[in-house]
Amino acid sequence: MEPFMNRRLAVAQIVRLMAFGALLVALYAQAFAAADPLPSWNDGQARKAIIAFVTETTDETGSKYVPPAERIAVFDNDGTLWPENPVPFQLAYALDMLRQMAEQKPELGKDVMVQAALSGDFAKLLEGPHHDGLLHIIALTHAGMTTDAFNADVEKWLATARHPRYGKPYDQLTYQPMQEVLSYLRANGFKTFIVSGGGVDFMRVWSERVYGIPPEQVVGSAGRVKYALTPSGPELVKTLDYLFVDDKDGKPAGIHEFIGLRPIMAFGNSDGDKAMLEYTTIANPRPSLGVIIHHTDAEREYAYDAHTKSSGKLVEALQDAPGRGWIVVDMKSDWKRVFPFETEAGIEAGKSAAPR
Amino acid sequence: MEPFMNRRLAVAQIVRLMAFGALLVALYAQAFAAADPLPSWNDGQARKAIIAFVTETTDETGSKYVPPAERIAVFDNDGTLWPENPVPFQLAYALDMLRQMAEQKPELGKDVMVQAALSGDFAKLLEGPHHDGLLHIIALTHAGMTTDAFNADVEKWLATARHPRYGKPYDQLTYQPMQEVLSYLRANGFKTFIVSGGGVDFMRVWSERVYGIPPEQVVGSAGRVKYALTPSGPELVKTLDYLFVDDKDGKPAGIHEFIGLRPIMAFGNSDGDKAMLEYTTIANPRPSLGVIIHHTDAEREYAYDAHTKSSGKLVEALQDAPGRGWIVVDMKSDWKRVFPFETEAGIEAGKSAAPR
Repeated sequence: MEPFMNRRLAVAQIVRLMAFGALLVALYAQAFAAADPLPSWNDGQARKAIIAFVTETTDETGSKYVPPAERIAVFDNDGTLWPENPVPFQLAYALDMLRQMAEQKPELGKDVMVQAALSGDFAKLLEGPHHDGLLHIIALTHAGMTTDAFNADVEKWLATARHPRYGKPYDQLTYQPMQEVLSYLRANGFKTFIVSGGGVDFMRVWSERVYGIPPEQVVGSAGRVKYALTPSGPELVKTLDYLFVDDKDGKPAGIHEFIGLRPIMAFGNSDGDKAMLEYTTIANPRPSLGVIIHHTDAEREYAYDAHTKSSGKLVEALQDAPGRGWIVVDMKSDWKRVFPFETEAGIEAGKSAAPR
Repeated sequence: MEPFMNRRLAVAQIVRLMAFGALLVALYAQAFAAADPLPSWNDGQARKAIIAFVTETTDETGSKYVPPAERIAVFDNDGTLWPENPVPFQLAYALDMLRQMAEQKPELGKDVMVQAALSGDFAKLLEGPHHDGLLHIIALTHAGMTTDAFNADVEKWLATARHPRYGKPYDQLTYQPMQEVLSYLRANGFKTFIVSGGGVDFMRVWSERVYGIPPEQVVGSAGRVKYALTPSGPELVKTLDYLFVDDKDGKPAGIHEFIGLRPIMAFGNSDGDKAMLEYTTIANPRPSLGVIIHHTDAEREYAYDAHTKSSGKLVEALQDAPGRGWIVVDMKSDWKRVFPFETEAGIEAGKSAAPR
């Protein structure tokens, strides 16, 4: 009996010390919380609304408390977590790949949509309800190869390609204020998901490294992959079969299919995010918050909403925002700085190449 | 300067105390690890292989170390985490719903496949490469309603239906040894996923409660849902459009689509899991382990492999196992007990109704 009692006492002591450790962690977390969790945000309505929502939904004693398992926050990517100009970054990837392919296979140059793409006629690619031209370009650059080969191509491109205006690798162009929101939410027990019209395979290559979002928390457009066991091992070949487009009404569908829970926070920047904002905030039995990033800062980033070149417009969601209670972030006035590399002297000083 | 210094000191002290707390947690974890993590397993080759694999892949100093983000473990559900006899539980759900529907709509009784289903002629439902009869039954019972209505139906069924042999609610019939594997893996930094031919919506209703696996870590068969904003709020209606069948070659495809990482552990029990076992263990750059649950215990559970009534056979995967290094669990000799409710006196004593 003696050793057993001793062991029980030892365990009890460890449990007590652990409780003490937990208390310290809680105190430390509180100290952190006391520091500004969103230092790149000016103290406007948007910042206040985000902090109030997180404070209320994590307060166990309050009426708006949401248990951690249900703290699902979804983020559009292009235009919400990083820019989508002068073209969405995945389109820049596709165009670079297309240029390489056209050099190797000259007959591709006769393809009307390839010509449109390489000449920058994106309006032609986006014609029609399903953007058939864009899909054709996607098929050429995103299907027919193994997932491993595709991942390697994306990594290689990210390591070498530079954004034409900022002269930086594309994956360094995330919005600093949104990175802070991601960290702030996770520190408060939220699970953060990307829900983007972009290709899920494209995003998963870098989502963990760039945003701290693991691959399984990335929802995006996808074709089905085809499995084969080859002499050199298992292989998954990318196809566009059963294509799922994670945009507009596809976003709530994708959230259901991949996450299986209704979010309580949604961040978007275009009408492509309207359905996701509705699904998150209308008649949700839990408290909820919808946020729209409004691109108002031509000096540091880009200014657009109704008129865009190669990305989705922001018209209907902006009209609906006041009635739905969605917070509209004015990039120019709400964000102290836009990019991580921005110094106090501005973006120019942080640049590594001349603007274009 | 004074208050700042004080604060810095205080923070340093907290960090030191936290490190001490972390040490205690580590010690406590070790104490736990010293206790048997798999008490319902006999000390055979299977148990040894699982423990050796987890020990090696979590040992930072060893050559087989795998970082936590890549510790992905995938589990088939029917026949791997809970029984699939006398019929897979989701089929029992579908049949109960079908009976209700046929009472309300007598014309359904003239449907050949409904007749086959209600008379227990499952061979007819499973005819053809795509199991068209089964799909028809699934369409009748799993499509055309909102996701909320479906979830409520599944909850209601689980609360009232009883397994014909064990007399228990279906969700109490999980395999105790596999529950221990799930907990053991998670305690060692693994992420546990279900990858099942079953319907993802069906499983997500109870996966967190029953297995501690959150909805977003459940991969399964699914049709696309259709979004609409109705006067009473957003709605998702279940369809069988773009049906994805998460079985056989669909399993590696589903793993890629939903998780985006190659697993390092896979647990299955039928040829439907063969591709998943291959994808996990063949030419994987990381260490990997494949495990097959072999149903050998007619007394406590069921004994079957090549001959099944309404579930997938186990023939090819069993033949491949030795060559692939897959561990075959002999339920009869490897498992001390099968179900959580099993007492030392056996399953009979734990039953709440007469066997059938």
